Amino acid sequence: MQLRLINPNTTAGMTATIGEAATRIAAPGTHIIATQPAAGPVSIESHFDEAVAAVGVQEEILAGEREGTDAYIIACFGDPGLLAARELTRAPVIGIAEAAFHMASLISTRFSVVTTLGRTAIIAEHLLAQYGFAHHCRRVRAAEIPVLDLEEDGEAAVARIIDEGRRAKAEDGIGAIVLGCGGMADLTAEITEAVGLPVVEGVTAAVKLAEALVGLRLGTSKHGDLAFPRPKAFTGRFEHFSGLTPAA
Amino acid sequence: MQLRLINPNTTAGMTATIGEAATRIAAPGTHIIATQPAAGPVSIESHFDEAVAAVGVQEEILAGEREGTDAYIIACFGDPGLLAARELTRAPVIGIAEAAFHMASLISTRFSVVTTLGRTAIIAEHLLAQYGFAHHCRRVRAAEIPVLDLEEDGEAAVARIIDEGRRAKAEDGIGAIVLGCGGMADLTAEITEAVGLPVVEGVTAAVKLAEALVGLRLGTSKHGDLAFPRPKAFTGRFEHFSGLTPAA
Amino acid sequence: MQLRLINPNTTAGMTATIGEAATRIAAPGTHIIATQPAAGPVSIESHFDEAVAAVGVQEEILAGEREGTDAYIIACFGDPGLLAARELTRAPVIGIAEAAFHMASLISTRFSVVTTLGRTAIIAEHLLAQYGFAHHCRRVRAAEIPVLDLEEDGEAAVARIIDEGRRAKAEDGIGAIVLGCGGMADLTAEITEAVGLPVVEGVTAAVKLAEALVGLRLGTSKHGDLAFPRPKAFTGRFEHFSGLTPAA
Amino acid sequence: MQLRLINPNTTAGMTATIGEAATRIAAPGTHIIATQPAAGPVSIESHFDEAVAAVGVQEEILAGEREGTDAYIIACFGDPGLLAARELTRAPVIGIAEAAFHMASLISTRFSVVTTLGRTAIIAEHLLAQYGFAHHCRRVRAAEIPVLDLEEDGEAAVARIIDEGRRAKAEDGIGAIVLGCGGMADLTAEITEAVGLPVVEGVTAAVKLAEALVGLRLGTSKHGDLAFPRPKAFTGRFEHFSGLTPAA
Amino acid sequence: MQLRLINPNTTAGMTATIGEAATRIAAPGTHIIATQPAAGPVSIESHFDEAVAAVGVQEEILAGEREGTDAYIIACFGDPGLLAARELTRAPVIGIAEAAFHMASLISTRFSVVTTLGRTAIIAEHLLAQYGFAHHCRRVRAAEIPVLDLEEDGEAAVARIIDEGRRAKAEDGIGAIVLGCGGMADLTAEITEAVGLPVVEGVTAAVKLAEALVGLRLGTSKHGDLAFPRPKAFTGRFEHFSGLTPAA
Amino acid sequence: MQLRLINPNTTAGMTATIGEAATRIAAPGTHIIATQPAAGPVSIESHFDEAVAAVGVQEEILAGEREGTDAYIIACFGDPGLLAARELTRAPVIGIAEAAFHMASLISTRFSVVTTLGRTAIIAEHLLAQYGFAHHCRRVRAAEIPVLDLEEDGEAAVARIIDEGRRAKAEDGIGAIVLGCGGMADLTAEITEAVGLPVVEGVTAAVKLAEALVGLRLGTSKHGDLAFPRPKAFTGRFEHFSGLTPAA
Repeated sequence: MQLRLINPNTTAGMTATIGEAATRIAAPGTHIIATQPAAGPVSIESHFDEAVAAVGVQEEILAGEREGTDAYIIACFGDPGLLAARELTRAPVIGIAEAAFHMASLISTRFSVVTTLGRTAIIAEHLLAQYGFAHHCRRVRAAEIPVLDLEEDGEAAVARIIDEGRRAKAEDGIGAIVLGCGGMADLTAEITEAVGLPVVEGVTAAVKLAEALVGLRLGTSKHGDLAFPRPKAFTGRFEHFSGLTPAA
Repeated sequence: MQLRLINPNTTAGMTATIGEAATRIAAPGTHIIATQPAAGPVSIESHFDEAVAAVGVQEEILAGEREGTDAYIIACFGDPGLLAARELTRAPVIGIAEAAFHMASLISTRFSVVTTLGRTAIIAEHLLAQYGFAHHCRRVRAAEIPVLDLEEDGEAAVARIIDEGRRAKAEDGIGAIVLGCGGMADLTAEITEAVGLPVVEGVTAAVKLAEALVGLRLGTSKHGDLAFPRPKAFTGRFEHFSGLTPAA
Repeated sequence: MQLRLINPNTTAGMTATIGEAATRIAAPGTHIIATQPAAGPVSIESHFDEAVAAVGVQEEILAGEREGTDAYIIACFGDPGLLAARELTRAPVIGIAEAAFHMASLISTRFSVVTTLGRTAIIAEHLLAQYGFAHHCRRVRAAEIPVLDLEEDGEAAVARIIDEGRRAKAEDGIGAIVLGCGGMADLTAEITEAVGLPVVEGVTAAVKLAEALVGLRLGTSKHGDLAFPRPKAFTGRFEHFSGLTPAA
Repeated sequence: MQLRLINPNTTAGMTATIGEAATRIAAPGTHIIATQPAAGPVSIESHFDEAVAAVGVQEEILAGEREGTDAYIIACFGDPGLLAARELTRAPVIGIAEAAFHMASLISTRFSVVTTLGRTAIIAEHLLAQYGFAHHCRRVRAAEIPVLDLEEDGEAAVARIIDEGRRAKAEDGIGAIVLGCGGMADLTAEITEAVGLPVVEGVTAAVKLAEALVGLRLGTSKHGDLAFPRPKAFTGRFEHFSGLTPAA
Repeated sequence: MQLRLINPNTTAGMTATIGEAATRIAAPGTHIIATQPAAGPVSIESHFDEAVAAVGVQEEILAGEREGTDAYIIACFGDPGLLAARELTRAPVIGIAEAAFHMASLISTRFSVVTTLGRTAIIAEHLLAQYGFAHHCRRVRAAEIPVLDLEEDGEAAVARIIDEGRRAKAEDGIGAIVLGCGGMADLTAEITEAVGLPVVEGVTAAVKLAEALVGLRLGTSKHGDLAFPRPKAFTGRFEHFSGLTPAA
Repeated sequence: MQLRLINPNTTAGMTATIGEAATRIAAPGTHIIATQPAAGPVSIESHFDEAVAAVGVQEEILAGEREGTDAYIIACFGDPGLLAARELTRAPVIGIAEAAFHMASLISTRFSVVTTLGRTAIIAEHLLAQYGFAHHCRRVRAAEIPVLDLEEDGEAAVARIIDEGRRAKAEDGIGAIVLGCGGMADLTAEITEAVGLPVVEGVTAAVKLAEALVGLRLGTSKHGDLAFPRPKAFTGRFEHFSGLTPAA
């Protein structure tokens, strides 16, 4: 199967990191295509960054549709553009926050999230509520590291994530930790060992959920509110979205 | 005060309709500037349309910031890009769905929404949950009319909205009706009379809420998760968002 | 417009304080009539005080109806008698707790309340739940000052409110503070400056919401559960409520 | 034990009906004192009626305190003044809506309420939410009979209640029915037989809960938010509430 | 009335303790039969212990049915097998966690639970949510004492429970404490005095609720999802459950 | 990997059906071992059946542990004994209701459940609430067919399920249907085609989720409330559970 792994930001290093983590975990028959939008923010750390990145995500979905993609992953912990993306395809589309929450709730009764910046905690809280996991998550914690520090100052960043994870283990009454950033995709093993709790990371979780859905021949429902958008005109720089019609 | 009324879609006729409705309701000192993005969908009827439109909304906020705007309204019932827009300014930013829900909850204990297409009901449901009004809304009903029919085939559209409103009054145990589309901004009086219930329309409600906040000298909090986004690089077609820094 | 501002307690000093704060914030055409019941508690600090005060509130509404009032405010943070008051009039009726919660949710994603006594926190919690803001409020904090100390020992009281507000800013992950007592109506500017967060005060917020609703020609729905009460006999000291019939 | 059964309205016939139903169900050692306020509405069918009646309830509690009462019941389905009443005494105070909901949830997983007028359904909904039973109640149904018709036109009223109960049984997927009016206290057996479901009536349920709490030596907590109100001045017609101090 | 008090574990000493506490609190006409399953865990401290114990509970119900029992109590704080037990009888069946939560919510607005081991807190949390008391309980606290230490090392155990209760009183903003283990049935008076808050204990609470329901002639609804199970074959060691048919 | 698929009932035909469905969907390296308890009910249609079956589930987990199992599935739609089973192993344990809900929420925003008997709908409702999917499920519908009719009178049963599914599609505003019984494991394709909506079946969904978790090296957390149970004595027929200690 073709699995398009969309890094919604435009930092190639992070796309590579994510792509490698996904490839390592993928089943033999899964072909990972790690991509990033042609345009957008170099990291996503605010609602504004998310709003801009969401458009690039849609373009990556449309590109994937032209290539016969079997499943998509949106590899940013805010799941930017997720429901929009689902409208564009019959294939499953998985967000990494969503994937991590689902998996964490299957191996523990309560978990905490360790994310990058405190200001993005509200994004996680809104997603937890929308997806149904508000009561499974004890606390959204922030290590207060900018996303790109994960690339540029990895060691210090990891140390802070581990510290926060240990505090979560000691104080939150939890069974598992969810890593709250796509850029942490290669840190799971190290953090798991250092904290001593199961650590759920979204990119890898999403790869496995995508494979699961494809294996079940389940794709995004085209009945009701996730049906293909009604074709219409778009103007200006978004004119290329005009008259979109589904592949089949 | 300068009130920038952003129609997130790119249909000039709808911008005009909305702008006129806003101007009629505005206080003497309120100067309404009705705008629309340079690029985007001609109507918003899906998550995808919303995701694209949300970028245009941000650009309209940035334009407003350069002109010393006192308050903003996002005039599409899905409130696209609302939290992102709030990050970009110290001024208040009001979504019309939000505005209508707040006002309806002040004059009735329970209300229903009458929107355009059934497929967008999920957007209203998600907003009701996030804003806290899930239990105040009995039902989200759809008249099943495409948004632009409000412009092009007004009479038939109004008849269907009135029908649905009457059903809501008869069946839902409610005290008020919320109109679920910016394009209905000029229909309030007609529907109110025909249905015989208070009808809350979001554009007008938002104008009054924006005036209220400005009168209270309350603007979007810049402490915590709605602070200005961290300046950063954007690439490609979104390069103009690079290094954004707040006006003051 | 005539705006009847009802202080539910019988302390004339507080009625004056509230009336002045309301007058300062009111739009040019808004005529504030600050009143208080002829009978009731000198301050409201318990469910019992609220229950007694709620009757005086109704009488003030009925007095207002005879005078052609355009909107009412109930200026005690527990919103005593709010739904009952709404039944008595076609005009909008706004509680100050309600007003403050609505406004705070428009400028921040999460807020905390700073109220007077810890024992009244449960009143705020019940209102937050009923109005839909339970998840928007991180914490209801008490400065542990009796209500009338705001009148009599203002400086010390303000110092404690500011202390509690600073703790809220430091610990609660919030963007705004709601002041939890009508008697704080004249302290907003001072507390805002001292704490460094937007501070939402209910009396002023309610004035602006009332003006907004009147501007929208929206009044309390008379369809359904807020319709005028069925006229009936009342006995004894409440005989004057017998056979109430709506003004028109 | 002395059990003061407070009918919050001032219709002596209903006080008698309720008192008889309570006496029939009471344990041998329970002495029922059925009372009604000296002043107030002859029936309670709105928030306004409730607000006025709540004051009479407090006076009945205070009268009871002077007589050494062991437990109180507030015998109107909206539980008017319940939390205020709890502040005034160390004895338990039970509302009949509350009592019925608790008991119904012990014998069924889901129940429906059959009340008098549709306009009071919102009162039941608010109580269900506050008490925690929102998900246990499938539906609040109204037979659309004024409260005093239960006294004056009993047969027709009962027929409508039975009809509504049968519809509830057929449509709601429930295991029990809650009768939503104190005036139905003597109808339990007849409705149970006619509908063929367990029928929970609040007056009788409250008598048994009050006996249970007294048997457990559990009374209203005087620690925290239900502590005795701070003594203070009341003015005018409520002057007699001034300087209230607990019996001991 | 015959009240069968089922201790779901197989420690005779605890059955005796519970039975004595129940007998002390029971009304004159209530005959307490304290029993325990023939097979099962000696204490219940995990989901696994609960799952095994739940079968013994059913057998005790069936034994009770043969003897003409009027009401049942399941005397373990996780209420193991409660809904299953209800299916087997027309009599009321009360769990002690359930009983304690109901009673605590009648005498306070907020309470905390003090239980034995932290690992069982999740069981209490799930029950609080299912029964509707999630918002009434501020916190589930654990004294971290194994259940049988209550029997074997009573003094030390009580000291820890009292410590935790005092912390709850000081920190949780509560009006009452719920004891979270059947084995604490004889400690209520001591803990109440030491902590200085009303203390609600489940075994005694359940006895009084059972008497209340029997007094009301209310039993488990046999309409809908608590109807007698459809008779069917059981195999192997559970063959004796085959073809169960209700007593009447 | 070794995947132990536990049919909690003792009908060998259903174990075979489920095993075949699982085997068809399993990845090449997954070895399905379909088992059933040595003792228990021949079908599960009530809380009572569930309570008995849950013990057999535990024994199958313990048997699996002795054989080096990598993951477990509990193949009855009520997920009987799920949390208990998780305590007994480091491997993941998945319930089929849980699996189906998770998967359905990834391909649609709202779904309905079609189950066998109306009386078991409450079981699904409780699970939806506990797992967090209460708002994602519009309605739990019953085809009113006994479980074993799926084996014995397959054609008629399927026809009724399809009818109910079509009603769900027409009335519920959903994007997907969840099949609410393990015995429907081989009907997915037929129902999908007949109804014209994505149909999520729990056995197959659970196989894929189990493979996903094993692929991620994520097993049940042994920190906190799902840790191995404390070893202890069990008496009588459950003596073999005494002194359980984890495999490693």
